[in-house]
Amino acid sequence: MTGMPAVGSGQSAVPSSGNDAALLTATEAAAAMQAGELTSRALVEACLGRWSERDGAVRAWTFLDPDLALAQADAADATARKSPLHGVPVGVKDIIYTKDMPTGFNSPHFRDHFPNIDATAVAVLRAAGAIIMGKNDTVEFAVNGRRAATRNPHDPARTPGGSSSGSAAAVADGQVPISLGTQTGGSVIRPASYCGVYAVKPTWNAVSHEGFKVCAASFDTLGWYARSAEDLALVADIFDIRDDSEPRCNAVAGMRFALCRTPVWHMAEPAMRDAMARCVAILKAAGAEVVDLELEGEFEGLTAAHKVIMQSEMRSAFLADRRVIGDALYPELVGILANEAGHSRADLVRAQDLAARCRAGFDELAAPFDAVLTPSAPGEAPPGLDDTGTATFNRIWTLMHMPCVNVPGLTGPSGLPVGVTLTGPRFRDRHLIAAAGLVGKAIARAG
Amino acid sequence: MTGMPAVGSGQSAVPSSGNDAALLTATEAAAAMQAGELTSRALVEACLGRWSERDGAVRAWTFLDPDLALAQADAADATARKSPLHGVPVGVKDIIYTKDMPTGFNSPHFRDHFPNIDATAVAVLRAAGAIIMGKNDTVEFAVNGRRAATRNPHDPARTPGGSSSGSAAAVADGQVPISLGTQTGGSVIRPASYCGVYAVKPTWNAVSHEGFKVCAASFDTLGWYARSAEDLALVADIFDIRDDSEPRCNAVAGMRFALCRTPVWHMAEPAMRDAMARCVAILKAAGAEVVDLELEGEFEGLTAAHKVIMQSEMRSAFLADRRVIGDALYPELVGILANEAGHSRADLVRAQDLAARCRAGFDELAAPFDAVLTPSAPGEAPPGLDDTGTATFNRIWTLMHMPCVNVPGLTGPSGLPVGVTLTGPRFRDRHLIAAAGLVGKAIARAG
Repeated sequence: MTGMPAVGSGQSAVPSSGNDAALLTATEAAAAMQAGELTSRALVEACLGRWSERDGAVRAWTFLDPDLALAQADAADATARKSPLHGVPVGVKDIIYTKDMPTGFNSPHFRDHFPNIDATAVAVLRAAGAIIMGKNDTVEFAVNGRRAATRNPHDPARTPGGSSSGSAAAVADGQVPISLGTQTGGSVIRPASYCGVYAVKPTWNAVSHEGFKVCAASFDTLGWYARSAEDLALVADIFDIRDDSEPRCNAVAGMRFALCRTPVWHMAEPAMRDAMARCVAILKAAGAEVVDLELEGEFEGLTAAHKVIMQSEMRSAFLADRRVIGDALYPELVGILANEAGHSRADLVRAQDLAARCRAGFDELAAPFDAVLTPSAPGEAPPGLDDTGTATFNRIWTLMHMPCVNVPGLTGPSGLPVGVTLTGPRFRDRHLIAAAGLVGKAIARAG
Repeated sequence: MTGMPAVGSGQSAVPSSGNDAALLTATEAAAAMQAGELTSRALVEACLGRWSERDGAVRAWTFLDPDLALAQADAADATARKSPLHGVPVGVKDIIYTKDMPTGFNSPHFRDHFPNIDATAVAVLRAAGAIIMGKNDTVEFAVNGRRAATRNPHDPARTPGGSSSGSAAAVADGQVPISLGTQTGGSVIRPASYCGVYAVKPTWNAVSHEGFKVCAASFDTLGWYARSAEDLALVADIFDIRDDSEPRCNAVAGMRFALCRTPVWHMAEPAMRDAMARCVAILKAAGAEVVDLELEGEFEGLTAAHKVIMQSEMRSAFLADRRVIGDALYPELVGILANEAGHSRADLVRAQDLAARCRAGFDELAAPFDAVLTPSAPGEAPPGLDDTGTATFNRIWTLMHMPCVNVPGLTGPSGLPVGVTLTGPRFRDRHLIAAAGLVGKAIARAG
């Protein structure tokens, strides 16, 4: 399944097929619809065609009703265009509420769960005319426990990553051009790395996190997947994400990058070490400056702080589940909710205050650069579906509220995708997305 | 309506009536139920009796279906007791989701809004056997715009305060022993002050804020009202709120308090200045030490920071409403969502970082004291229903995530309640509730 032709600006597992519209990025589809050359129905039919062809192998969806998707498409076709996303299908991670589809958290305890409201992000997409295509499989509660049934589109024997497994795989496989995921550790960026697609985890709370299953309220973040950086920007427009100043980068030549190996660099596998080195070489060859940025001192406590805060905040977030479902929850979750690790309130406050200091500190360190380069994952997607990989390289950014964009295009020794994260100061989202487009194109050109 | 006999340990507007059970605190009702002297049906019937007698004057509810409440009571009576709250009715602010009742945000745009899920806090209460009595009126979206129809039970010509207007008034008026509210500025504590009841706004995120209309995600907090500090503690048990160490205070004698006039002390009316002085005199007479605590330097920026963060975060929280409802929203909200104040992302980050530094700084300043005393409101409840009062004295604590407990019992020149806030370091909630019980009893004894 590897070595397929690229779709959009990024790397993708999508093979060429009769359903050409399914291969379009959202930006390309919008242009075709604007020009009267494509209808939403034709686009949704193409995506449904791709889905029915590939679902047995990829299994990215927990709910997909073709009639419901087509009814939305017909309604969009009968309405004046509301935005570039008008008529474009979007997948939604199954911890995010959708008023017309069930939301089961991939949990055996929520099989018939059907909140009749939209998450704020879903309501915003609908108001822009987007088609809510269906629900994407997820690791249970977007935390741990049950795995998604989803397989990596590049290699069905490998994980697509978690927890936004289905959202990443559906986009990578050409079943939908855009999808929503969520990240508390590395649940948006890691699957993007493993599946070879673009993704953004924006600055914390730049997009409302109302209407999805909460894990750690102080850093849960909603993000999205696409097959081009232009598509990430298109969705960012819909979510009204703006930096204080317009992105200024137009070419890699002259840009300034920092390479940040992070305090967990020793966890990077050779595949990721090689990919980062190759990325740096490509950027330098294209005329960019790349310097090293070390995160030392207090930053070294962030990984431990992430665990303390996440597990402490889960105790309030999952209190009703603990009381109602109790020991029938998966054993690790039962232990966390019982505070088996013994985190005190003082531990929590210390961790929160450390995170706050590091937020301000990293903003300052990263300000001089167009982007900070750092691994999106330890390496290629691990074999099997049980190990969805680790959020080691993502956690500190999520905790620090920093925007992160995954850039696809590099591969490891097995020919599988290995992603590079571009991060930077809070609310530099649009600049990073623009930079990611340039970096992705430079990587694609380098072949 | 003033000068009514006290109910529980606090001041209340509740006149004696035939419905004695409605006058019980939750703790007293639990003891009677445990002893087999009271059923949930009898308690709910008494509260319904009080409601039907007084609703024309107080108007605390947007939804109350006696049959639904009684059906829950009968089910509770037929089940083994699950907690001290078993069979006890609770009011729920109408921005908090309840699966079996509408949630309209007191907004003309959400008249038929009926999310079919419980907020996490509501699900936790149900799991404890509590009766969800109905929905309490609120200021629109718990922000501004439409006022609640609710009147102050002590004087129907005055506001009960906002935004948790109905929640505070229903408890003060003896229509329900416990109710839930939410606070982003002063929406729990101020109505408690005006209505003369106990209330706690716990440390941020000690109780899940999943399932209510979000305003500013980084400091929205769910709190509750009661007619005694013991009842606040009872509900805190249900929400699994624990300090690192058990509260140690057993008597006012020997306790150490700080009087914090805050940077907005000039906004305090004579009624509040007198009440604070009287509170200090009572505590000193009872053997406590009271020293002054000044908040200077960076703390003086907190009020401005609160506004920047709240308005900035509202732009993501209300984005779907802006897109769907647009200019039909109330004009002030339209302006905030259009960022008429021109807050930049840099302003937001500076405000967040200031708040984070002040959290750590206040924890340290407040650590030596059993509690910090500070005003709950500028003075007595203002006349009329349009002016719900100001959150001036509450905002900085909400922004700093500090636990706050309102202690009733003092009155102003019109004989109306004036509340004192006990605050302290993050996660000192239980200690503050215990201290509030002692302070409230000392005030009541002083007459």
